[in-house]
Amino acid sequence: MTLPKLILTDIDGVWTDGGMYYDNTGNEFKKYNTSDSAGILFCRLLAIPVGIITGEKNDIVKNRAQKLGIDLLFMGIKNKLQVVEGLCSKLNISMSEIAYIGDDINDIQVLKAVGISACPVNASTYVKKHCSLVLNREGGNGVFREFVEKVIGDEHLEKVLDIYFDSLDEFNQ
Amino acid sequence: MTLPKLILTDIDGVWTDGGMYYDNTGNEFKKYNTSDSAGILFCRLLAIPVGIITGEKNDIVKNRAQKLGIDLLFMGIKNKLQVVEGLCSKLNISMSEIAYIGDDINDIQVLKAVGISACPVNASTYVKKHCSLVLNREGGNGVFREFVEKVIGDEHLEKVLDIYFDSLDEFNQ
Amino acid sequence: MTLPKLILTDIDGVWTDGGMYYDNTGNEFKKYNTSDSAGILFCRLLAIPVGIITGEKNDIVKNRAQKLGIDLLFMGIKNKLQVVEGLCSKLNISMSEIAYIGDDINDIQVLKAVGISACPVNASTYVKKHCSLVLNREGGNGVFREFVEKVIGDEHLEKVLDIYFDSLDEFNQ
Amino acid sequence: MTLPKLILTDIDGVWTDGGMYYDNTGNEFKKYNTSDSAGILFCRLLAIPVGIITGEKNDIVKNRAQKLGIDLLFMGIKNKLQVVEGLCSKLNISMSEIAYIGDDINDIQVLKAVGISACPVNASTYVKKHCSLVLNREGGNGVFREFVEKVIGDEHLEKVLDIYFDSLDEFNQ
Repeated sequence: MTLPKLILTDIDGVWTDGGMYYDNTGNEFKKYNTSDSAGILFCRLLAIPVGIITGEKNDIVKNRAQKLGIDLLFMGIKNKLQVVEGLCSKLNISMSEIAYIGDDINDIQVLKAVGISACPVNASTYVKKHCSLVLNREGGNGVFREFVEKVIGDEHLEKVLDIYFDSLDEFNQ
Repeated sequence: MTLPKLILTDIDGVWTDGGMYYDNTGNEFKKYNTSDSAGILFCRLLAIPVGIITGEKNDIVKNRAQKLGIDLLFMGIKNKLQVVEGLCSKLNISMSEIAYIGDDINDIQVLKAVGISACPVNASTYVKKHCSLVLNREGGNGVFREFVEKVIGDEHLEKVLDIYFDSLDEFNQ
Repeated sequence: MTLPKLILTDIDGVWTDGGMYYDNTGNEFKKYNTSDSAGILFCRLLAIPVGIITGEKNDIVKNRAQKLGIDLLFMGIKNKLQVVEGLCSKLNISMSEIAYIGDDINDIQVLKAVGISACPVNASTYVKKHCSLVLNREGGNGVFREFVEKVIGDEHLEKVLDIYFDSLDEFNQ
Repeated sequence: MTLPKLILTDIDGVWTDGGMYYDNTGNEFKKYNTSDSAGILFCRLLAIPVGIITGEKNDIVKNRAQKLGIDLLFMGIKNKLQVVEGLCSKLNISMSEIAYIGDDINDIQVLKAVGISACPVNASTYVKKHCSLVLNREGGNGVFREFVEKVIGDEHLEKVLDIYFDSLDEFNQ
């Protein structure tokens, strides 16, 4: 299985179930799933860069990206395709070498343009029809990890698990 | 499909799963679903005004309405039918031109009066029986968006998606 | 259907799904379901007092009881049966005239003693076997309301809905 | 059924559904399930020590451990197997006398080493295959309690329930 040169992901509805928790003071919560962090780990061990492109703009996403060591972070984006095209130029890669996961109408243009396009099982019909990969999990339930596992394939998955277990020996606590 | 002149919606149990998160300090959270915001977008692109009528009264709903650009906001309402009748007078429309979605006993009188009446699949039997449209989704799981999509119909949905994609070209980021 | 003279309820696992949200500052959230508040309304319209007996002790429960107008509130209770026996004496009623809903081991002694004993569908087998009524809903998903509806029966339910709709005419907003 | 000499548990994905709630201020919530606290009670009544080993490090876990009276708490752990080996030495027990529940790749080495290894039903295939016990519940839905009940067996469960009911007589409120 050929690995993509870049993995890009939407946040709300993919890393979350679409839920946005608001309180009376204007504060907000998002619920991420720790399961997805292994997906980021797998990409790092295979040296595939990961980027986030989201329509929202707040410190929750920024902090999460930072905690997971994700450098490519684009927030408050209306036209996602434009951002992806910019990345292709900058990184000197083609659209067909990108794998993207998104779940809603603002993801459709990118889903139609990239090499591997994926969405959670609970995306709308008019999003699904543009995806080469409809995953089994719902948004917020580890679907980003499932996406990475499917994109890298079983062979690479086994390889990264071996690398991961070897790396644990370095820790002396 | 004839479009309604006004779309009205309950909040708790429709935009949420009925969940109310309370803490020890008296603060409160509600969990909205970003999926529903596309429903609001579809109405705006079709020039159908959207209004919220809720028995609750707090800044969470007010902020959410503001973020989504909803002008018609009625909070702390006991008698919802009265509010809807007032809107008919003010906007010079009839009950039959209104589409309403609600899930509980304080919605029944409105559901019985309007042209299109809808509820989430998990509403009580004695609410469902007054609805012309029992939706497939549960409250908080994108049921408002499903409601809008059903009310406007496939043809209008395709049209708004086209308008939406065209509008993205305006953004140069 | 004979109405009970008193309806008593556990909180965690009944009014909630058992979830306890904790943060880094020691603050805590509980997620209630607005659907259950209609259960309280039905009891009030039928003049059946409602009481809460919970092992937890915090302002979240106190505030919720206050908002719903529940006067009988017992928090931090280890031995619930003792509290129920005390209520029988004080209110001059017998155990058989009480309906109780609970979901865990600290509810079993009360469930075995009262006239109508109920639990959510997701309670443990060794709790269920002491219940005369295993409900269809899970804790936090409106099971208290289902409990009230089953306990009062269809006839009384229709009656309270009529009273409720009549009461709405009083509101001039 | 022979009782284990030590019960060890992961937190995220076992005591929770993997959900991590983050807000704009850097604060975080975890959602525990009160149902699991009975699992801790059962262990205490059978004098089986319980320990927590987690890769995360924050006050939420510390406070939860404290509230439940869990003394063995290891946070921020990369190499969990090392910690478990240390505990064996310190407590003079063997790996085969330990029961462990975990759900992700950082649990696999421990799952392969201990006497009883368990995971929630929603763990990945490559975690499940190292477990002697795949439980029926998902993480955050009482799976730790199910784990304890399965590990101690029906006979011991009945015994602890009897002890528990007897202990309630001590409380005079």
